Amino acid sequence: MPIFRQAQRVLCVSLFWLPLLLSAAPAAESLPLVQKQRFEINNFKTSQGALISKVQVGWEAYGKLNATKSNAILVTHHFSGSSHAAGRYHADDANPGYWDSIIGPGKAIDTNQFYVISSDTLVNLNAYDPTVITTGPASINPATGQPYGLSFPLVTIVDFVEVQKALLDSLGIQQLHAVVGPSMGSFQAIEWASRYPTRVQRVLPAIGTAAVDTYTALKLQRWADPILLDPHWQSGNYYHNRQQPTQGLTYALAAVTLDALHPDVVAAQFAAITADKAAHQDIHTPLKAQQQLLARAAKRSKLMDANHLLYLVRASQLWRVGLAADWQQAIKQIKAPVLWLPARGDLLLTAKSAEQSQQALGLRPDNQLQLIDGDSGHLDGLLYIQQHEALIRAFLNQSLP
Amino acid sequence: MPIFRQAQRVLCVSLFWLPLLLSAAPAAESLPLVQKQRFEINNFKTSQGALISKVQVGWEAYGKLNATKSNAILVTHHFSGSSHAAGRYHADDANPGYWDSIIGPGKAIDTNQFYVISSDTLVNLNAYDPTVITTGPASINPATGQPYGLSFPLVTIVDFVEVQKALLDSLGIQQLHAVVGPSMGSFQAIEWASRYPTRVQRVLPAIGTAAVDTYTALKLQRWADPILLDPHWQSGNYYHNRQQPTQGLTYALAAVTLDALHPDVVAAQFAAITADKAAHQDIHTPLKAQQQLLARAAKRSKLMDANHLLYLVRASQLWRVGLAADWQQAIKQIKAPVLWLPARGDLLLTAKSAEQSQQALGLRPDNQLQLIDGDSGHLDGLLYIQQHEALIRAFLNQSLP
Repeated sequence: MPIFRQAQRVLCVSLFWLPLLLSAAPAAESLPLVQKQRFEINNFKTSQGALISKVQVGWEAYGKLNATKSNAILVTHHFSGSSHAAGRYHADDANPGYWDSIIGPGKAIDTNQFYVISSDTLVNLNAYDPTVITTGPASINPATGQPYGLSFPLVTIVDFVEVQKALLDSLGIQQLHAVVGPSMGSFQAIEWASRYPTRVQRVLPAIGTAAVDTYTALKLQRWADPILLDPHWQSGNYYHNRQQPTQGLTYALAAVTLDALHPDVVAAQFAAITADKAAHQDIHTPLKAQQQLLARAAKRSKLMDANHLLYLVRASQLWRVGLAADWQQAIKQIKAPVLWLPARGDLLLTAKSAEQSQQALGLRPDNQLQLIDGDSGHLDGLLYIQQHEALIRAFLNQSLP
Repeated sequence: MPIFRQAQRVLCVSLFWLPLLLSAAPAAESLPLVQKQRFEINNFKTSQGALISKVQVGWEAYGKLNATKSNAILVTHHFSGSSHAAGRYHADDANPGYWDSIIGPGKAIDTNQFYVISSDTLVNLNAYDPTVITTGPASINPATGQPYGLSFPLVTIVDFVEVQKALLDSLGIQQLHAVVGPSMGSFQAIEWASRYPTRVQRVLPAIGTAAVDTYTALKLQRWADPILLDPHWQSGNYYHNRQQPTQGLTYALAAVTLDALHPDVVAAQFAAITADKAAHQDIHTPLKAQQQLLARAAKRSKLMDANHLLYLVRASQLWRVGLAADWQQAIKQIKAPVLWLPARGDLLLTAKSAEQSQQALGLRPDNQLQLIDGDSGHLDGLLYIQQHEALIRAFLNQSLP
C-alpha cells in the first residue's frame, strides 16, 4: 500500500542528499558487452488461431539469474525498438540500448540485483538489422521456401507476450519480479500482468495505455498508408526483386517520428520556416524541415521492413487489455502493483489516456502514476525516463503486501 | 476597454433571461437566397513578386451596405471552405453556409445591421464546385490556353488578403467594421488587422493562430504527401487526361479530416475496433473506421483539385503575421480590438497556440480570448461557434475607444 509514499520519500531524500550521495556512490560500473541469443518455437499458435511452423526471436539479458530464478525483470520494447534495451555490443559501440540510462549496475533497474531480460517481438520492425532476430512477413516460409509476405498471419500483442512466456518457460523462470516497457512495450507489460496475474509481481507501463482508442488507431493507420500507396509495395510481394517500397517506408517513418515528437523539440531541432527562402518562392521545393524529417527517416529505415511496419501498426491498432470487448473490465485482472509513467507532453499516447487506464484499474494505493517531463513528446519516455530513477528503484524494491 | 466585462455581462444576462428572451424574440427571419458574384483583377502581383495576368474569385454578401459604407464585416474562410459562409442557394438547399448559425437576421453577426461579405480565396480547394470561383493551378493560363498546373505561382495568406482588398476597393468599402474567420480564415483576419490597421475596426480570429509553428507545418505536409506520392499526380500535370490523383486526394482529405477531429467525436462516430472482427483476422482488411474515414474523404473530395490542396498547404505552412521574420513583433501592428476564440479540444491549431498569439499582441483590455467547448476538436470552431453568440454580438457592438 505505501509504495507511492515510500517512493516519494525516497525521491525527496535522494534529491535532498544528492550531492552527498553522488560523492559517496561508487564509480558506475558498465554492463559487460551484450550478446544476442536465439530462441525458437515450433508450431506457434497465434491468438487469432493461425499456426506459424517456426518462430525465431532474438533476446538478450543483463545481470545474473539467481538460484531461485526469482529476480527476473522482463523489458518489453516499443514499436521501432528491439531487445537491445541496455548495454553495448562492442567496446566502441556508440549507441547503447534504448533504456541504458535506467538499466545497468547501480542504475534504477539494477543489474547487480536483477536479471533483466528482453526479446525481439514477432514482426519486429528492424528485420534487416543483424542484431535483431524476428519472424514475420520478411521471413522464409518453410512450406514454400519463399518469404511469407502478407501470407504471414496477423499477430497481436497477446502473441508477443506468448512468445516471451515460452522463452521464460524455457529458462525455467516462472515468476517475474516485474515487467517494464515503454509505448508498445507498455501494451505487452499490461497484457502480461492481466493475462498472468500470478506470475507478474510488478508492472511499469511507460508512455503507454491499456487501450488504443479509435482516433489513435486512425493516426497509426497514417503510418501504414504511405507504404500501401507506394507502387513498389506490390501488395507486399516485393521480396523477389529485393526492391523495397523505400519511398513509402521513408514517409511512414517520417510520420512515426513526427507523431512521437512535440512542437517544442521540433522548433528547436528543425529548420525554421521563417528563414526557409526557397519554400517561400517555389512550390516545387519542400520545406527544409520536411527534407530534414525525411532524411532522418530514410536513415532510420535502412534496416527496416515495410510489411513488418504494417503488421506492427495493426497489432497496435487492435490493442486493448486481453483483446477484450470490455477492456475496462479486463484490466481488473491485474493484481500486481502498477506504476504508470506517461509523459506530460505526449501527443501520441497521451497522459490522459494513461490516466484513464489507471482509473479503469481502480482506486488502489498500489496503482500509481507519475508524469515524465521533457520537450520531446512521446519520446520523453525514452529520453527522460531517468528523471524517475529513484521512484523506479523504490517501486522495484518495495515488498509486496 | 470594458469589452470583455460588457460581453460577460451580456452573456450572463442572456443566459439568465434566456426563456423570457426566447419567448419575447420575434420569429427568426431567414436570409434571402444567396447569389454568387464574380470579381476580376488583371495583372495581380503576388507577395512573392510573381504576376498572375487574370485573377477571378467568387463572392457573396448578406445584409445591406449602408449609405456611408461603414457597416461591412468581412468573413474569411477556412482551408476547405469557400465564400459560402451563410444562407442557402435555393429553397430546398440542405447545406447552408458554414457559419450560418451565427450569420443572419437577428443572429450574432446580424445581417439586419451589418453587410457581411465573403470571397473565395485564390487556389480555393473546391475548384470544381459550381458555386466556387477561384484562380489557381486548375485555371487556364491565358498565355498558353492550358491549365497552369505547378507553373501557377506560389501564393500566400497576404495574397488572399490583397484580393479581398481589391474587391472591397471596387465596392468603395474603405472601412471594415470587423474581419472574422475560422482557422485559415483567422490567418487572413489577423493579416488584415496587422496590414491595414486603420481599415479594420475589430478582428475575431476563431480556432486560429498568428503563426503556424514548424511542428504544425510538418503536420500539414502530411496532407500534401499522399498527393505527391500518387503516380497519377504526375508532378501536377494531370489535367490533360482529366485523371486526377484521386487516391492521393482522398487520403489527403482523410488526413485533413482526422487532424480536424478529436478522440471523443471519433469514438462516437466511427466503428469501434473491438467489434471489428475482420480487422482482427486479416491484415488485408482495413479497419472499418479507416474505411469510413476514406469514404467520407472520397465524397468530400469530388469537387476538389489536388494541386489546389498543395498550394493551400504551402500558404498555411508559411503563415505568420506579415510573413515576418519576427511575427511576435509584427503582430503589434494590430490596433483593433481582438477576440480570440480557440477551441479547448483543438489538436490542430491548439488553444495554447492562440493564447501565445494573444500574449504576443500584449496585455490590452481589448485583447480577449474565450474558449469554445465541444467534442469535435478543431471543428468545434465551425460546429459550436454559436455558444458564444452573445459574446460575439457584444464584441461587434462595442463602441471603439
